Amino acid sequence: MKISLIPSVDYIKEEELMDKVVVVIDVLRATTVITTALSNGSVEVIPALEIEDAIKLKKNLELLGGERKGLKIEGFDLSNSPLEYTRERIGGKTIIMTTTNGTRAIHKSLSADLIIIGSVVNGRAAAERAVKENKDIVIVCAGTHGKFSLDDYICAGKIIYHAYETENCVLEDLAATAYMAYRDNRNNLISYASMASHYKYLKSIGREDDLNYCFTEDIIDIVPEYVEGRIRVVTS
Amino acid sequence: MKISLIPSVDYIKEEELMDKVVVVIDVLRATTVITTALSNGSVEVIPALEIEDAIKLKKNLELLGGERKGLKIEGFDLSNSPLEYTRERIGGKTIIMTTTNGTRAIHKSLSADLIIIGSVVNGRAAAERAVKENKDIVIVCAGTHGKFSLDDYICAGKIIYHAYETENCVLEDLAATAYMAYRDNRNNLISYASMASHYKYLKSIGREDDLNYCFTEDIIDIVPEYVEGRIRVVTS
Repeated sequence: MKISLIPSVDYIKEEELMDKVVVVIDVLRATTVITTALSNGSVEVIPALEIEDAIKLKKNLELLGGERKGLKIEGFDLSNSPLEYTRERIGGKTIIMTTTNGTRAIHKSLSADLIIIGSVVNGRAAAERAVKENKDIVIVCAGTHGKFSLDDYICAGKIIYHAYETENCVLEDLAATAYMAYRDNRNNLISYASMASHYKYLKSIGREDDLNYCFTEDIIDIVPEYVEGRIRVVTS
Repeated sequence: MKISLIPSVDYIKEEELMDKVVVVIDVLRATTVITTALSNGSVEVIPALEIEDAIKLKKNLELLGGERKGLKIEGFDLSNSPLEYTRERIGGKTIIMTTTNGTRAIHKSLSADLIIIGSVVNGRAAAERAVKENKDIVIVCAGTHGKFSLDDYICAGKIIYHAYETENCVLEDLAATAYMAYRDNRNNLISYASMASHYKYLKSIGREDDLNYCFTEDIIDIVPEYVEGRIRVVTS
């Protein structure tokens, strides 16, 4: 089993994802939000590329969530802070969600055999789910505006680390560097992540509580999967 | 001063190098060879893209050096092993050199303001030279066949680390990860580099002595510069 890593949306070559398991990561904050929402009882999350797409998809009782430039979208119910997605607020609900980077990464990964949603909060579970498929694994880092993002990279390192623990994997070079970055900094993830420009940006707009939550490891056991336009927890 | 890192030749956008200092790295083995040759008294190294170009450039007493698939080219004087480039063999000589990745990286960096040659053997000196220019620095990793190569990345980390030590630099995200990879593994570079597929390949063709040499830190103080088709030590 081979594990490779795509550093950002702009580097996805769709033909290279065929017959592979893709783990999409946008740790700050889309995939952390999606994982948290489903863990807290949301029925499903529908990702939409544009704000207008999200509004069109809303039929009735769905909640609209997401961000532009890290801030809540006007008229939307929820921002992109995972701390808003409590059981009281979103339990039993469908969420339509649009974010700058994470949604794009999912939409560019459609040629994969299976798309799962990874983050730090469910990293170990995501790794175990990916390995179970017994296919090559591609970790897709969403990045920030098409650029490599250190926060996604260290989350990728965590998932690769756990996969490598459970299976005899071959790591491509970039995946190997991410693996070692996590191995060497696992006791101090926040300090590592704080070197990321997107981390610094979110801190500057007052989202420190989100940042601490997004880098808390393995507090969630569920693994969301994207199937035909919807992200759900698939129990097989 | 900002430091960024380009993960391989295929990701070079020439317009992004303008007015910048570029440090080209192909640690296994082109830039290590060039640095060693000039340190051992070679007059200059002329990089050529193709084998035919190298042969055409040879007028008289120049030596032909380089590799394809890591092996010596038929009819050439020297392979791509830095250990061959001794003072006895190349002192006072001009070397025309063609390699798979390093030469391409230099040729794709021509829009830069200054191109210097970096490796582990002269990493600290290369960092100090780059910083002296007081411009933004772009580290160009040659990579292997257009792909990211872990061995170049950890060498980039070393150069960024030394630059960061001497100057107040801002590190872009990928540069920050390389910096931390070196910071966390500087006492065990060979073990880190041994995760690289190109490292494993060179080991499999019996080049272990080269590998040990290529990851020996700061045994050379000179910094080669590329100026108008020639690589020399420029003393200002």
